[in-house]
Amino acid sequence: MYKVAVIGAAGFTGAEAVRLLLAHPVFSLSAISSNNDADKPLASVYPYFAGRTELSFCSHEAVLDNAGRHYDLVFLAVPHTAAMKIAPPLLKQGVSIVDLSADFRLHEPAVYESWYGLSHTAPELLAKAVYGLPEVFRSALQEQAALRAAGQEAVLVANPGCYPTASVLAALPVIEAGFADSESTIVINAISGVSGAGKTPSETTHFCTANENLNAYGATTHRHTPEIAQTLSGLAKRKVAVQFTPHLAPLSRGMVSTVAIPLSKDASQTATAEGMQQLYEKRYAEEPFVQVLPAQTMPKSSSVAYGNHAQVGVAYDSSTNMVVASCAIDNLGKGAAAQAVQCANILFGLDETAGLAL
Amino acid sequence: MYKVAVIGAAGFTGAEAVRLLLAHPVFSLSAISSNNDADKPLASVYPYFAGRTELSFCSHEAVLDNAGRHYDLVFLAVPHTAAMKIAPPLLKQGVSIVDLSADFRLHEPAVYESWYGLSHTAPELLAKAVYGLPEVFRSALQEQAALRAAGQEAVLVANPGCYPTASVLAALPVIEAGFADSESTIVINAISGVSGAGKTPSETTHFCTANENLNAYGATTHRHTPEIAQTLSGLAKRKVAVQFTPHLAPLSRGMVSTVAIPLSKDASQTATAEGMQQLYEKRYAEEPFVQVLPAQTMPKSSSVAYGNHAQVGVAYDSSTNMVVASCAIDNLGKGAAAQAVQCANILFGLDETAGLAL
Amino acid sequence: MYKVAVIGAAGFTGAEAVRLLLAHPVFSLSAISSNNDADKPLASVYPYFAGRTELSFCSHEAVLDNAGRHYDLVFLAVPHTAAMKIAPPLLKQGVSIVDLSADFRLHEPAVYESWYGLSHTAPELLAKAVYGLPEVFRSALQEQAALRAAGQEAVLVANPGCYPTASVLAALPVIEAGFADSESTIVINAISGVSGAGKTPSETTHFCTANENLNAYGATTHRHTPEIAQTLSGLAKRKVAVQFTPHLAPLSRGMVSTVAIPLSKDASQTATAEGMQQLYEKRYAEEPFVQVLPAQTMPKSSSVAYGNHAQVGVAYDSSTNMVVASCAIDNLGKGAAAQAVQCANILFGLDETAGLAL
Amino acid sequence: MYKVAVIGAAGFTGAEAVRLLLAHPVFSLSAISSNNDADKPLASVYPYFAGRTELSFCSHEAVLDNAGRHYDLVFLAVPHTAAMKIAPPLLKQGVSIVDLSADFRLHEPAVYESWYGLSHTAPELLAKAVYGLPEVFRSALQEQAALRAAGQEAVLVANPGCYPTASVLAALPVIEAGFADSESTIVINAISGVSGAGKTPSETTHFCTANENLNAYGATTHRHTPEIAQTLSGLAKRKVAVQFTPHLAPLSRGMVSTVAIPLSKDASQTATAEGMQQLYEKRYAEEPFVQVLPAQTMPKSSSVAYGNHAQVGVAYDSSTNMVVASCAIDNLGKGAAAQAVQCANILFGLDETAGLAL
Repeated sequence: MYKVAVIGAAGFTGAEAVRLLLAHPVFSLSAISSNNDADKPLASVYPYFAGRTELSFCSHEAVLDNAGRHYDLVFLAVPHTAAMKIAPPLLKQGVSIVDLSADFRLHEPAVYESWYGLSHTAPELLAKAVYGLPEVFRSALQEQAALRAAGQEAVLVANPGCYPTASVLAALPVIEAGFADSESTIVINAISGVSGAGKTPSETTHFCTANENLNAYGATTHRHTPEIAQTLSGLAKRKVAVQFTPHLAPLSRGMVSTVAIPLSKDASQTATAEGMQQLYEKRYAEEPFVQVLPAQTMPKSSSVAYGNHAQVGVAYDSSTNMVVASCAIDNLGKGAAAQAVQCANILFGLDETAGLAL
Repeated sequence: MYKVAVIGAAGFTGAEAVRLLLAHPVFSLSAISSNNDADKPLASVYPYFAGRTELSFCSHEAVLDNAGRHYDLVFLAVPHTAAMKIAPPLLKQGVSIVDLSADFRLHEPAVYESWYGLSHTAPELLAKAVYGLPEVFRSALQEQAALRAAGQEAVLVANPGCYPTASVLAALPVIEAGFADSESTIVINAISGVSGAGKTPSETTHFCTANENLNAYGATTHRHTPEIAQTLSGLAKRKVAVQFTPHLAPLSRGMVSTVAIPLSKDASQTATAEGMQQLYEKRYAEEPFVQVLPAQTMPKSSSVAYGNHAQVGVAYDSSTNMVVASCAIDNLGKGAAAQAVQCANILFGLDETAGLAL
Repeated sequence: MYKVAVIGAAGFTGAEAVRLLLAHPVFSLSAISSNNDADKPLASVYPYFAGRTELSFCSHEAVLDNAGRHYDLVFLAVPHTAAMKIAPPLLKQGVSIVDLSADFRLHEPAVYESWYGLSHTAPELLAKAVYGLPEVFRSALQEQAALRAAGQEAVLVANPGCYPTASVLAALPVIEAGFADSESTIVINAISGVSGAGKTPSETTHFCTANENLNAYGATTHRHTPEIAQTLSGLAKRKVAVQFTPHLAPLSRGMVSTVAIPLSKDASQTATAEGMQQLYEKRYAEEPFVQVLPAQTMPKSSSVAYGNHAQVGVAYDSSTNMVVASCAIDNLGKGAAAQAVQCANILFGLDETAGLAL
Repeated sequence: MYKVAVIGAAGFTGAEAVRLLLAHPVFSLSAISSNNDADKPLASVYPYFAGRTELSFCSHEAVLDNAGRHYDLVFLAVPHTAAMKIAPPLLKQGVSIVDLSADFRLHEPAVYESWYGLSHTAPELLAKAVYGLPEVFRSALQEQAALRAAGQEAVLVANPGCYPTASVLAALPVIEAGFADSESTIVINAISGVSGAGKTPSETTHFCTANENLNAYGATTHRHTPEIAQTLSGLAKRKVAVQFTPHLAPLSRGMVSTVAIPLSKDASQTATAEGMQQLYEKRYAEEPFVQVLPAQTMPKSSSVAYGNHAQVGVAYDSSTNMVVASCAIDNLGKGAAAQAVQCANILFGLDETAGLAL
């Protein structure tokens, strides 16, 4: 058993991490913190937990104090800017971190500053952090696991954003195969449930605003854009341009990201719908959490609700020479807390599906 | 007062037309037909109408019989293939038609056949029919109105599909201005409420399927694709390629279409976000049913629910040289029945907003 | 044309009143106030109004100042306690009021104090105010209309709460007929959409709290209890005991109230399901806004959404000697703003359905 | 490991049983049947199961054939009338059954016939079947477990209906304590999500019917009425009269039942809110799946979604001398499949919470 804590456990992603960790066969959840709800029983904030756990919130400080003695791993579920302050002292105490905020996802401090509007206070950790999308960076994560196991150092995983997870999984096989036209922009449209907007009540999250409503938001300006571009560029080994537009729809949990990828002229010579289907099936054949749906089938977010699974559908349009692929995930699951557990499983040398299979 | 009938009034779009026509100041609704519900009171099928009207359904045949004596105008809200059989005898009797089906929207019989999988049985009417998107084809509609008023002939309007309405209104100003890159494909992603799937119960429309769910469908194959391409090509005066992907979301009524338009190199020399905002505002300044939202604001489908209004937001991304614009409509309102009333208002020389303003 | 203003127009009920008044054939809406949103265009707060009106909010003070010169009627849509401060100066200036708050609904100051927890500051107006449920108090409203028309005084209508409207309409025919057992308590369970909780964002109104959720609240303590009891007691000419439990369900607008009424032994001698059906049909035969559904049919809130209609279904259970009746309304419509317009129509001698028929 | 099968696994309750059994530590799910979907992979009907299981449906017949050799336990999730035909041959082969249909819930064949409108074809099993509400009938279930373990016979559990589960758990402590007035009717109003209406598409389950809608249905005639009355009468050791009215609300899963129980004059002498709170807390203190919420708190169905937990809130109204209590469950979980697993755990001598705790 490894002892773990969740810092920032009262938000939606933190509480989801708690839910998963309470059922985990190896990680033992021994502390959950929330500065706003310190000393309250978890069940008083989330009645779901009544009868399932006696855990109460403590303050962040209470976790950080002597963390090295008490925890092997901390899940950070605090907002960005808070994470980059908490991570360095934890690492120094030898506590590994899976950070669910955006603070360690972008490699370049300058990119972080230009999209988040402030200076990074722990830029040296940007190089150290591994981006926690196992379907792309499994070996890097396993290297960290080896370092950790060898007792050499505490490790830091930057858990991906929800939109980047779904978008990258939809585009990955085509990009990796080098089929995308290098001169064209990949257009990504995604739709999220309202839990993505967080727990704080606002006009946006008011039921009467969100219900029976659809809208785009953050067009051309959403902060997940550089994160998607960074990963796809890495896969393509060149700069990939991305036009990302997220939308809000009236559901609590669920996300679909649909990518339209213009193929190169070369690729168009041989591209077929069947070929793309096979490309996707082959690429994901060994992935425990990614299912490629049968040809002509696009995934439903409801099929992956509350879990770590991603489902992907792919189509090819010969008249436009574009691949259209769509990926469905649970934005709080594979898009946040469940993927964090998946990363933690890898970091600690466990079966990658521990606590996540069903 | 003009006497009107709705053929196919028991479906969602037909019933919405009935709702609007009952409150219309000039059109007098005197017959509604449904072969399945013939002889039933409207209020027994839609309890909404209890206490509001005593109308009962008759059969389609009962409307068609001597239609020329009884009606000035018929709204056809039957499925495609049924409309192309009903329209010719009505027109021969001198009854004008606003057809809400897809049967008369595409100009080329061959295109119809390739997307709908069957031969058009009234191909000669494809040339005669005017596409009822007033924001683009107002003068053509007014010409028909003049013909009708002169007593020369009954006229036929092909009311646009819901996705094409929202998609064209989002893209129109850029395309019309000639800013779009002629080598690139316009990527359109749209989201619809479930009423778009029609009234017949199915697995897709089951509450437990649709609720808490998002999914793409019909990627590369949706029949609204050629309709969008036809209108945009007309506006651009060249062939416009469109990659259209619709999605389903858990709401009853509402639609958002978001278009990503790669600009030409020429256009990129001068393109700015402000310029695009002004372009849209200017283009729609005189349109009674299209509002351009303030800069940085994307429209909500809830703001246009139950009406004939369309709201549009536009953004420009200098890093990709793309315009991203989003249009929200009510899929049964501006996307179907309300737009049909708008067209009818024009055809009969009425104030275009009659019965639709508030 | 009469000139009207809405004070407190930025809340859900105020905005709904604005929507209805903008389409009203006789009332001319010339001012809307909100202290929080003063000087903002209505359309910037509710984009629905874009392209429909140019009205902007002013402060409450701006309406109150010289109100007597500018307005014939004011709709008060401010919270309780605010209304009892604003009403007296308005009445003094000769401006009639339809108050949508709870401040003038209860006849007894002591009852108000015991349920609302504070002293009434205008107790003299409690006797003057007429309870605006036209189906019960139409003649009293008409008397006020006569007083107003004679120029004798400004009048004050206390618009009923949403739950009392639905509950009283469900129970009315049985109570009025004297069939209810005087020793037994009437059990009322109601369900409301989330708009009933108001526009202020809170944990309760967060989409992720309300969606996919049902719960009772305010059991034994909801403030609409004495209001229901007061009206039913008046109808029964004796004290009627009521056990009222409201519930919240995941919809924006809509309310159902289901009443279970134990009949007296006397009544049970002759009670039948058919007899109850006839009793209800007869009682509501002349009511323009109440429809009794066919036997065995319970009403749907969706059938009355956005309007002033109430639909009622009734059943009789001979094994328990109880009448079960259910009434559906729109909580913001017949349950608030639309009923306020209905009352205003009566007060000004208009057709009671003006602006509300379709 | 015990080998189990689910007959009727393609419906909502059957599929939920499958979901739970796949994660169960002791029961090994080796067959699932559906006559309509025979030979289809489960994942093709419910994409949720993609990547989680390779199970395919077989026919009911394939399970029944030599069932005694292959299965220790069968979950019957077929409609009523089908279950009473399948159960006898299974029992004869020595296979124990948890039946999720209504066929074996009522003790009296005459009551079954009067509410279900047909003769029971296996009336001798009505006496043998144990009603599977562990919170009431745990010792009877344990006796069956002992019989089964002794190899003496296959046992039959009649899994309760969803409304009876929630309603009985809400009323139980008061009834059991003998506080209810014997002359008065208990009024029960319940609200269910749409999954309770089953998987077959219909007008009722159409998204556009159910969404943004509330309605009562089956007032005075719902078939769960005698089931509730039977259990409460057993607890009270006298005939208990029940007025039960269910309602439909726009959510997929979730149920709340609110009971209003008139107390006897005797009970009223000492009844207090605190006393009732303590009564409920004490009664359920040892129950692993029932939580009594703090005073003044009514339960939310979302807190118990997807699980076997029931949450209960209770209030006492001294002015009416009534207890109002509300219970929230997941209608497919504690209201059906999860409770069936709980019963099966008892029948096979396992920890009652096996596979259900988190």
